[in-house]
Amino acid sequence: MPGQLVHDFITHIERGDMEAAYAMLSDDVEYDNVPVRKVFGRDAVRASLDPFRARYDEVVWEVLHQVANGDLTNGVVMNERIDRVRKGDDWAEIALAGLFVVRDGKITLWRDYFDRAQFEASYRK
Amino acid sequence: MPGQLVHDFITHIERGDMEAAYAMLSDDVEYDNVPVRKVFGRDAVRASLDPFRARYDEVVWEVLHQVANGDLTNGVVMNERIDRVRKGDDWAEIALAGLFVVRDGKITLWRDYFDRAQFEASYRK
Repeated sequence: MPGQLVHDFITHIERGDMEAAYAMLSDDVEYDNVPVRKVFGRDAVRASLDPFRARYDEVVWEVLHQVANGDLTNGVVMNERIDRVRKGDDWAEIALAGLFVVRDGKITLWRDYFDRAQFEASYRK
Repeated sequence: MPGQLVHDFITHIERGDMEAAYAMLSDDVEYDNVPVRKVFGRDAVRASLDPFRARYDEVVWEVLHQVANGDLTNGVVMNERIDRVRKGDDWAEIALAGLFVVRDGKITLWRDYFDRAQFEASYRK
């Protein structure tokens, strides 16, 4: 089901198993960090997330709520998360809400809503 | 079902039928505009939303996606919206994601995630 798929996707990112995560995206996936920028295509997501993941010693995306409708052919998942990262002894975090559209077993749209200033105050400190 | 309840809540706000909207909130509701502030209690929501709604000639909250789980006793709804307002000939809008927790037929938590700078650039122009 699509909720499990998104759960697995997040787990792959947390574990740094990035290729397993990218394999869950459609070729033409849209990845939209709403207040920052959006990119299109699995390769663009890789170019964005590989350096992100490599920057941190630990990534923990805590899901506070997750809601899913539909199935793997045509599903929508939304979750409320606190995305935390650690580098050495320093943790940063951002509260956000994510949208995932699933088509034919792949994530075709991933959009995260958050406040850019809150993000930068914690991640760029 | 909780998705219909949230749909009706939004419709009341769009139509300016504010008391009908407030009647759908629990006494101790938490209303959290994440990057701005949160308030607690139906009266605090009224004090926040009455002036908001009175400021505009038209309010249109377009739901792009909405996902719901559970029932009216214990439900969670999330939606992706573009909240638009019009005053005279001027429209403002903000893209956001909302979370609604429903308990015993009432909304007990309403949290909207958005970028404060995007909001202010459009609504405070």
